[in-house]
Amino acid sequence: MFEKPLGMRDTLPELYETKDHVRSSIEEEMKRWGYQFIETPALEYYETVGAVSAILDQQLFKLLDQQGHTLVLRPDMTAPIARVAASKLLKDDIPLRLAYSANVYRAQQREGGRPAEFEQIGVECIGDRTISADGEVIALMISSLKEAGLSEFQVSVGHIGFVQEFFRQILGTEERANALMKFLYEKNYVGYREHVKALGLSSIDKQRLLEFLQLRGGEEVIERGFELIENGCGAEAVHQLRQLWETISDYGEEASVKFDLTLVSHMSYYTGILFEVYAGNVGFPIGNGGRYDLLLQKFGKSTGATGFALRLDRMIEALGTLEKSEPVICILFSAERRKEAFEMAKTKRADGMRVVLQDINGVNNVDACTNKYADTIFLLGRGPS
Amino acid sequence: MFEKPLGMRDTLPELYETKDHVRSSIEEEMKRWGYQFIETPALEYYETVGAVSAILDQQLFKLLDQQGHTLVLRPDMTAPIARVAASKLLKDDIPLRLAYSANVYRAQQREGGRPAEFEQIGVECIGDRTISADGEVIALMISSLKEAGLSEFQVSVGHIGFVQEFFRQILGTEERANALMKFLYEKNYVGYREHVKALGLSSIDKQRLLEFLQLRGGEEVIERGFELIENGCGAEAVHQLRQLWETISDYGEEASVKFDLTLVSHMSYYTGILFEVYAGNVGFPIGNGGRYDLLLQKFGKSTGATGFALRLDRMIEALGTLEKSEPVICILFSAERRKEAFEMAKTKRADGMRVVLQDINGVNNVDACTNKYADTIFLLGRGPS
Repeated sequence: MFEKPLGMRDTLPELYETKDHVRSSIEEEMKRWGYQFIETPALEYYETVGAVSAILDQQLFKLLDQQGHTLVLRPDMTAPIARVAASKLLKDDIPLRLAYSANVYRAQQREGGRPAEFEQIGVECIGDRTISADGEVIALMISSLKEAGLSEFQVSVGHIGFVQEFFRQILGTEERANALMKFLYEKNYVGYREHVKALGLSSIDKQRLLEFLQLRGGEEVIERGFELIENGCGAEAVHQLRQLWETISDYGEEASVKFDLTLVSHMSYYTGILFEVYAGNVGFPIGNGGRYDLLLQKFGKSTGATGFALRLDRMIEALGTLEKSEPVICILFSAERRKEAFEMAKTKRADGMRVVLQDINGVNNVDACTNKYADTIFLLGRGPS
Repeated sequence: MFEKPLGMRDTLPELYETKDHVRSSIEEEMKRWGYQFIETPALEYYETVGAVSAILDQQLFKLLDQQGHTLVLRPDMTAPIARVAASKLLKDDIPLRLAYSANVYRAQQREGGRPAEFEQIGVECIGDRTISADGEVIALMISSLKEAGLSEFQVSVGHIGFVQEFFRQILGTEERANALMKFLYEKNYVGYREHVKALGLSSIDKQRLLEFLQLRGGEEVIERGFELIENGCGAEAVHQLRQLWETISDYGEEASVKFDLTLVSHMSYYTGILFEVYAGNVGFPIGNGGRYDLLLQKFGKSTGATGFALRLDRMIEALGTLEKSEPVICILFSAERRKEAFEMAKTKRADGMRVVLQDINGVNNVDACTNKYADTIFLLGRGPS
């Protein structure tokens, strides 16, 4: 009878404490890297932020305001932060480092599916076109995951410019490229191979399209990328990946990173290096990010940017909930000893303890009370004289 | 061009840091009092939570989901928490202590008015009908405000049952009572007096209605309340206020509390002791709360409850923003000394410092960079050999 809308969830105390712990660890790390947190509103105009958000229209929660404008519940944080950066913060001619932890909203089609509201924690480094910025956000993501307590995770790095240029060289039209992109996005490599075999192309080109699928692995992928591409943009992309590898190595984080040049994203605004991270047995990426050098233009500023977002729900799926929550003790009192109870609670709270004060008249079941709390102190009746 | 919907606001870094600081101080205090934090979804069904929320229909943000149900952005947190408590948490026969910090949504009619999205931090003590529970939430509110750094604030405590019974005795009909309630809610005492004078009542009854307005002040108001009421419910309400005063005194917090028996609320679900708190020169209450013993029934559980909500935006208006934010230092590096820069940053961050790493090639204006940060360290060129 008292159900929640499709995909909406409550966070009960145990899970809340875990989320809070994970969020705080990551926020502290982001602050130590000099990122500044901001908040943006849950509702944005569809015309501005909604339209550039790269989330499918059918996944947007839309409503009309009292003035007749269409609003959306923000489906991601990158577009709102680009709006704020462009309109308010990009005054000085130096890079901006912004961070957020916020819920985003994506309407779902059926029960038992994905959540329609979930928390993302992420950063945006805006106004810096160097590969150092790409390296920094990847290194910060790795460092954040470690701070949160995750030990087993794998970052896959690709370059959307490489994929686009490689497909353009062989396939010519964007339409034909998009068909293959879709297989890559779905990680449906069998479908990709079948599709390639059926294309009207020379056997050499078909061979190149199939070899492309092998561009996944360690540092050696960079050389193989150079061999497979013919010139121009594609080679520049591989060159950027080499620089990135050197940067990640200087951070000492190369053990967490692999290349996957077949990586594409549903976020259509990416323009360069992009990445995603998987952990444990979680079937979806726990985070992703990349460079989006054209998005700020939509808000009137021409400058480069890169960033990432981690999904708190999936990180916790990988981590498990905290084994122990903070113990709470209960002081059960009657009116005669109320003041004594209040003073005892005050002293214990000042020592950092969690203390429930409970009037015995408010409890029907004293056993349930003693069972619930780590310890119960009884201050009842007249007390010791 | 890139505007936000009516009443929607961005929170930029300086304000964010202040909000974060205030929120954390209060959250820690609530946890020390044994309250457990939970989260509920931003969207709820209009039929369940929306309809009981006590916020005017025209202030609700409504939308249709893809299944055709009407959803609302939660306009307050008390109703959603009552839903969760009733459906999931009220299993044991002992009081539940829940807390939240969350944004709530109320549509506004015009620009420059009140925010349409704002953060509330509050608690609900559910399943305890004792006055000790009323006293606890008021004492916790006071303690939270002090923890947040507020020194000048005033809690006004009233009793909706007293007002209802007093008006019923003199005016008879609910309709006539509601007309006077409206003046009280607007704190329009001139309008109240005019209205009373025009009523067709005996001069004794008119006198009582006017004397009622004087029921504001310290402990002495309790006696005057007893004198003004005739019997039954009204006397019981004053008796509860006396018990409350004793409890607040045992907490040692009586200096922050005054009585105001003319206090009424726009939250129609209150049934007993209710209160609001003002601070500094802020023109609206920074928080309010009270007992709502009938709300849980709407979710199928018959039990008493009380709680309060503080508004973070108004608290910060009373407090002012933090005078100093954490200093951030910047290490400006070129490729030759990248690794050295990364290692220096790592050491400083491990010491808890906030350190921005900036590739010199990503900066157009080095002066702006040195101006922005508390200190800038240059690691450029080949460096010392």
